[in-house]
Parts: sequence; C-alpha cells; structure tokens
Amino acid sequence: MTRRATAQAHPNIAFIKYWGNRDDRLRLPANPSLSMNLGALRTVATVTFLEEEGPDALILNGIRVEGPARDRVEAFLDHVREMAGFRGKAVVESRTDIPAGVGLASSAAAFAALAVAAAAALGLDLSERELSILARLGSGSACRSVPPGFVEWVAGDRHEDSYAYSIAPPEHWALWDVIAIVSEQHKAVSSSEGHRRAATSPLHALRVATAPERVARCREAIRRRDFESLAEIVETDAIWMHAVMMTSRPPLFYWEPATITVLQAVRRWRDEGLPVAFTLDAGPNVHVLCPREAADEVARRLEQVPGVQRVLTSGPGGGACRIPDS
Amino acid sequence: MTRRATAQAHPNIAFIKYWGNRDDRLRLPANPSLSMNLGALRTVATVTFLEEEGPDALILNGIRVEGPARDRVEAFLDHVREMAGFRGKAVVESRTDIPAGVGLASSAAAFAALAVAAAAALGLDLSERELSILARLGSGSACRSVPPGFVEWVAGDRHEDSYAYSIAPPEHWALWDVIAIVSEQHKAVSSSEGHRRAATSPLHALRVATAPERVARCREAIRRRDFESLAEIVETDAIWMHAVMMTSRPPLFYWEPATITVLQAVRRWRDEGLPVAFTLDAGPNVHVLCPREAADEVARRLEQVPGVQRVLTSGPGGGACRIPDS
Repeated sequence: MTRRATAQAHPNIAFIKYWGNRDDRLRLPANPSLSMNLGALRTVATVTFLEEEGPDALILNGIRVEGPARDRVEAFLDHVREMAGFRGKAVVESRTDIPAGVGLASSAAAFAALAVAAAAALGLDLSERELSILARLGSGSACRSVPPGFVEWVAGDRHEDSYAYSIAPPEHWALWDVIAIVSEQHKAVSSSEGHRRAATSPLHALRVATAPERVARCREAIRRRDFESLAEIVETDAIWMHAVMMTSRPPLFYWEPATITVLQAVRRWRDEGLPVAFTLDAGPNVHVLCPREAADEVARRLEQVPGVQRVLTSGPGGGACRIPDS
Repeated sequence: MTRRATAQAHPNIAFIKYWGNRDDRLRLPANPSLSMNLGALRTVATVTFLEEEGPDALILNGIRVEGPARDRVEAFLDHVREMAGFRGKAVVESRTDIPAGVGLASSAAAFAALAVAAAAALGLDLSERELSILARLGSGSACRSVPPGFVEWVAGDRHEDSYAYSIAPPEHWALWDVIAIVSEQHKAVSSSEGHRRAATSPLHALRVATAPERVARCREAIRRRDFESLAEIVETDAIWMHAVMMTSRPPLFYWEPATITVLQAVRRWRDEGLPVAFTLDAGPNVHVLCPREAADEVARRLEQVPGVQRVLTSGPGGGACRIPDS
C-alpha cells in the first residue's frame, strides 16, 4: 500500500490581519481575521509516508532542505501521524511559485497543501473545518488557505474552536490583488517571532479588542461588494498592524523606502478616481486591491513606480484540495 | 510713546506629541505633551503698534506677507489688543532661520516670540504662565516655546489652565537633536487641519488616554538623564502619532521614502551601540536624539544617508524672552 497524496493550496491576503497569539504553541490567534485566497499563486505538496521510522525529508522546489524549515514540517507531521496512529517517516516534495519569506504568505499555502496531502496520504477522512484546524498548527494563517474564496478565521478559545470558513466563494466578487514587490530579500525577523512580540506594543490590545468589529464590517463590505467600505477598513487595519510592529519591543520595521513610494502613489491614484486600496502583510511589499476592471491599469502604473521590482496579479482563488499525483 | 518690542524664541521638539484638540478654537489639546527647546534655531519678532486702526502688516524675513499667515497673526494680536485695551494696528517683523512648514515647529517659535514681543509692546506685565497661555492661542505648541529647556504642557480643561512650564533648565542635560531634513517642501496638509482630523482615527482615543502616563515616564527619564528609557517612550509616541495620522479620514501621510531610510539607519546604529533615538513631528524629517558626545558622529552619518538633504544640529535652548530692538 502506497501512503502518498498530493494537494494544492493558494496563499491568502488578509484584509483584517492576524498578528499576535493568545497561545503560541497552538497558534490560537489573539483576534479573528479575514482574507482572500490568491488564485494565481499556488503551492503543490506531495507527501509520501514510508514504513520505516526516522527523520522526515523536505524537498522544496527540487532542493533538499535541512534546518528549521524541515524541523517545522516534521513537527507538523507529528500531529498528523498521531491522529493516524502511524509512525513512519515522510518525504515531502513541495513546489511553489510564491517567493518565500517576503510577506506573501508562502507558509500559509505550504501548510494548507501539506495538511490536505498528509491527511489524505494516511487515510484520514477530515472535514474542511478539521483540515483548517490541522493546517493552523503548521502556520496560523494556513488555516485560511483551506476553505475557498473569501475566508474568515474564527479566533476561538481552544484548539477545536479556532478554524476558518468561507464567507463567499471566489466567484462572488472579482476583486483583484496587484502586488508590488519592492524587495525579495528574506525578512530578518520571522512572523513567528513577530507574533511573540505583538503584546509588547501599547497599540496591540485595542487592535485585538476592536478586530471583531472590523471583521464584521469587512464581511459586510464583501457581501455587498462595497469597495469603498472595504478600502477604509482594510487600510486602517494594515496601518494599525504595522504600528503595533513598529512599537513592539524590540521594534519591527518591515517597511522599505519604496513601500512609502507605493503607498503615496496609491493614495494619489485614488484621489484621481481610480478604485484602489492598499494592504501590507509582514513585509515591505504592497498589495493593491482593486476591481478586476482596474487591475491592468494598476499593474501598468505600479510597474513604473521607482523601487518596484516586479508586479504579481491575482484574483480570488479556491480552497486547498487534493489533486492527482504527478 | 513708542509701542514697540522685540523678542526671541526657539522652536521645540516634542518627545510626547501634541496631536488633536479638545477645543480647536482655544487650541486646548487632547493630551498633555512634553518637549525640548532647540537652542540653535530661533525666531526674532519685532512688534510695533501704531495709533491708527487698520489691517496688521506681517513682514517675514524681509518679505511682506498677505493671506492666511497674516490673518492668523492679526487674529492672534486681537487677543493681545483686547487684553491691553488698545485698538491700533501692528507691524510685525519676524526673522527666522527655521525652514517653514516642514514639521520643524516654525509656528511655535514664531508665536512664542510674537506673544512676548506684543505683550511687552503694549505694556502688559504677564507672567511666564500667562505668556504661555497667550502664545497657545496663536499656535498650540507655541506655549511650549515660552518656558526654558525641557517643558511640559499641562493640557488643562479651560483656557487659563492650559499652559507649559519648565521641568528642567537647558543645562540639566546635554541632549542633542540632530535633524535629518529629507524634504523642504511645504507640507500639503497643515497641522491645524491635521489636529481636526485626529479624532477620526480609531487609534486616537487610546493615545490620548495613555499620554499622561508617557509624559510622566518621559519626565522621569529626563530627571534621571536616562537615555534608554527616553528613547523607548519617545519612539513609541512618535510612531503612534503617525499611525493616528495615517488612519485618519481622510488619511494623512507625512512620511517620504527617505524617512524610512533614516529610520532604518537609526535602528541599525542603535543595534551597533550608538545611543540614538528618533522622533518625527508632523512632517517627513527625522529628529535623531542623542547625547552631545555622539552628535558629531550622528550628524556625519546622517549626511551620508541617501535622501538626506541637510542636517541641522541643536542642543537644549532657553525660553522666549525680550531682547533689545535692533
């Protein structure tokens, strides 16, 4: 019997951010969050479990990886092995077109795909919610890459209560994300470390306390396809998260000079009548949201902004799912 | 009898910021603030009151000025005339070495000098506190340029209760401000307009509510000449103010790409052991605080940072005072 399965998942861009945990080990988030899967980017993971015990192997884009990235995958697979009552080692082959470590949620797509593939390989018949909960153990925001389209992550109090669900399918709203890459350098401080520092900022507790209200308003804006309302909430929450980062101890500065150039350009374009809104994950790149009709124009303009190295464009994407082994 | 007097005042750099009013007309601030006068920069104002009534004249650095700047001076002088029971028009000659409108508190020094000169010209014998209250009517932060050295502005509930006083004389601590000028463009949105928008930010109320605590900690850090503590409080408050600005409706972005370059450099230098801390007023320029011993090195390094146009250096300065007419 071959214990092998392949799955794909998309990264997601958060409209209301996840920053800070109430439980670091279980990755129970301090606040609920809301995101959209990015259909144009994806990770495909194939997991093969062997009978023999031993260290797991991780092969990323064809290259054997050791160190913390492999350790993190092994720790994650230990959860799956425990659920399935299986002890053999795994070989994980993962391929992605997402630049890693630049705040493009590469780990979200990776662990969502891995959760689906690993569970299938060991014959676990898990629901979407259970897969979301499982993916969360690998990377918090990975739980949001399991359901399709526009997704809300219920913060929850316990492991079983912290999962993501779809609030609208990808075809509900042709909302585009045009991503201005201003740096492909791997970030100096990981998101995991950042989450641990969040509570040291005096701006954190209020962001957490008011996040449910912003999630509700954002959910409503998505339901009504109300770009103006979405823009205001999304920009406020992104700035707030970065203000938390910049006032943490020690402080975290993810912005680059070109980040400001893009933010200024986006504000100018909006004043000129172009429907655009910005958000930023834990990195210097700027995600420019717009209706699909404006995406080509936004991409064209972003490519001309000094400091922008390249532009990626994506509409809403589906959830994590099993695909045939290649 | 000649109704003429001349006074000088320094601008000040706030360590805990003034942003938002509880009363826009009286410029009663939402929160207490704390600052240091900058002795190396100054404004000298000569006020001459004439017997005849009519519009006041404003001459800035030798150039006759009309429009909103003159109107603001006339509205301010109306308060002084009312206090003195005098109705004649004034000629105000003001000279300064402070670039205007780039977040260097040019209006603070201008109205502090004007308050002292105008009161003296009309024979009003006002205490330091009364002069501070008067200056506040011209520009909120001008009240902080009246007392010497390190200064706290008591927010107050009423006009008579909102004034600044010295918490330590300039010679108490050789703390230097090395200012990286990244733009000399006049800011697109005035501080007065910014103050009106402050309350539209969801980050404003908590900043206001917690400002007294930061003022107390900052006061204590100054008393103990504790640079480390000062650095942490000052940076947090500055980021918080700019986060309020960036999340106001409509949003206010004062940062330029070179602002980020300087902030990154300051953080790197501190990691390397140089005692430096940043703060920013309502503008893109970065004030780098350091002990006097480090000021030359900091200035030398700042001059080499890309995007920095020039560097100004200042230690603590005295209060606003009358000087002989030139």
